[in-house]
Amino acid sequence: MKNPVKVTLTGAAGHIGYALAFRIASGEMFGPDQPVNLRLLEIPQALGSLRGVGMELEDCAFPLLHDVVLTDDPEIGFRETDYALLIGAKPRGKGMERKDLILDNARIFAAQGRSLNQYANRDVRVLVVGNPANTNALIAQSNAPDLDPSQFSSMTRLDHNRALGQLANKTNSLVANINRMTIWGNHSMTQYPDISQCLVGGVPAYDLVTRDWVIDHMIPRIQRRGGEIISARGLSSAASAADAVVDHVRDWALGTDEGDWVSMSVTTDGSYGISEGLMFSFPVTCSARGYQIVKGLELDDLSVARLKASERELLEERAIVDELLQATS
Amino acid sequence: MKNPVKVTLTGAAGHIGYALAFRIASGEMFGPDQPVNLRLLEIPQALGSLRGVGMELEDCAFPLLHDVVLTDDPEIGFRETDYALLIGAKPRGKGMERKDLILDNARIFAAQGRSLNQYANRDVRVLVVGNPANTNALIAQSNAPDLDPSQFSSMTRLDHNRALGQLANKTNSLVANINRMTIWGNHSMTQYPDISQCLVGGVPAYDLVTRDWVIDHMIPRIQRRGGEIISARGLSSAASAADAVVDHVRDWALGTDEGDWVSMSVTTDGSYGISEGLMFSFPVTCSARGYQIVKGLELDDLSVARLKASERELLEERAIVDELLQATS
Repeated sequence: MKNPVKVTLTGAAGHIGYALAFRIASGEMFGPDQPVNLRLLEIPQALGSLRGVGMELEDCAFPLLHDVVLTDDPEIGFRETDYALLIGAKPRGKGMERKDLILDNARIFAAQGRSLNQYANRDVRVLVVGNPANTNALIAQSNAPDLDPSQFSSMTRLDHNRALGQLANKTNSLVANINRMTIWGNHSMTQYPDISQCLVGGVPAYDLVTRDWVIDHMIPRIQRRGGEIISARGLSSAASAADAVVDHVRDWALGTDEGDWVSMSVTTDGSYGISEGLMFSFPVTCSARGYQIVKGLELDDLSVARLKASERELLEERAIVDELLQATS
Repeated sequence: MKNPVKVTLTGAAGHIGYALAFRIASGEMFGPDQPVNLRLLEIPQALGSLRGVGMELEDCAFPLLHDVVLTDDPEIGFRETDYALLIGAKPRGKGMERKDLILDNARIFAAQGRSLNQYANRDVRVLVVGNPANTNALIAQSNAPDLDPSQFSSMTRLDHNRALGQLANKTNSLVANINRMTIWGNHSMTQYPDISQCLVGGVPAYDLVTRDWVIDHMIPRIQRRGGEIISARGLSSAASAADAVVDHVRDWALGTDEGDWVSMSVTTDGSYGISEGLMFSFPVTCSARGYQIVKGLELDDLSVARLKASERELLEERAIVDELLQATS
């Protein structure tokens, strides 16, 4: 039997963590022959609730789950971890300025970056889900100078999957028959869901839907989907966010399908003219060597303008947290 | 590609339904090459919340999920369904007598039995999760005279998995190395978790733990585990209950492991001296032919007394709902 892979979840007693932990333990993230050890990290006031999550995990008798540690100590939570899924974040309080929200979270993620730098497996892979995810990931990465920037990512897979769902619904086709969807930019209102490269059953998506539908309906709906779900459920998206985490990490660990790509926010390298030193969502393929940004896609003027708008927002966010970025980044 | 299997969930917007729907859609119940169609049934006042669940399912872009129907109409929900997972039930209200709770639920499950009888696929398999699960299943089964009683079951798999978790923890062994656990009787305080046949890494469990530990610690803890989790989480078990549903249906559909068995509440056939015409949890094996009660296990006097106590409780529950049982049962 393989050695267990060690997976750390922060915010593990929250709605997304609760929806996620069981899917990891059941083998959905790393496959049916890969044991896992879970490290569930929470803030002290959530430890009671976390104990309940731990009991329920025990009650599932998952054959692949070898052990579970519940803790509020980052050293215990991150020690020798192989995958760190940073889900917990400070939510926006009433009357809170966006700048303060960004700064409060930046402090949390700076500390987690330092912990990862100190305690994690040297090959750890980090996914940031807690918002503002891209800038939180940048902060964590810059505070982990002994790790490679390519070990850090943030999540746009929920947006990616939402775009697939919208397009499948509109074209009355199966999701399995759609490929080459892309989310560009920041996980925010400036994100750019781009179907210009999509094939639906081998047919270019723009042969099946109009540009007006994409601009007037699909993109705004994806940007506002979180609010739509809160209105219906009275609770924010949890199971679908957890599912996107499963997809993101599984593809990063086990590789993307031949002929397809996925969307991940990763460290910019100058591709598509985006400034270096940001976390930005690109189309990527994954293999045993890690992720590779898909290069050389043609972008029309409208698309370039959208990418630039999202880049501008990320530069503004970075300016807010500048003091917390390490000089090495 | 295989034809999709049609799966109906009642109470689909509730906590267990929400934890379950995504795991079915991801392929955990029927395997990675079996498409599924979901029929999510709710009471009218939960349809708004159910719409949110439907959106999140769409947002996951599950390749195996071919379609989803949201409805409060049992005809639409149960038409030609292959698997009916009856999760929704009326919870106990303040100051409500146990008898009234049983009767109120009996009316719900009698109606669902009639709907299944009228609309479901003739080979439908039914799992009742909503409490009192055994008696609800009996009511549903007796109101579906055109279906075979062997098509109905109720869930003791959560108790079974909890017992595996407790024993694994106590013996410091992996769950995967324990087999032949049994839950006998009613899914209630009278259930009897029985490790007398268990092997832990091939060693009889009673060579590793004492009878006192089982009677004084393990059994009471399993019986009261639901309350323990509510105390910790402030919410009842949802993810672990959903996981047990996945396990129960997967094993029923795809078969149990060679040399092992699972616990399912099924129609009594006189085995172990239990009265016929009840739903009672037994050790069962599953294969393409359905489930088979494991016969001929030796039970000591203590065990026989425990089975009889649970039988007595089920006979009392049956007496309460007598008027709702069809004469044919």
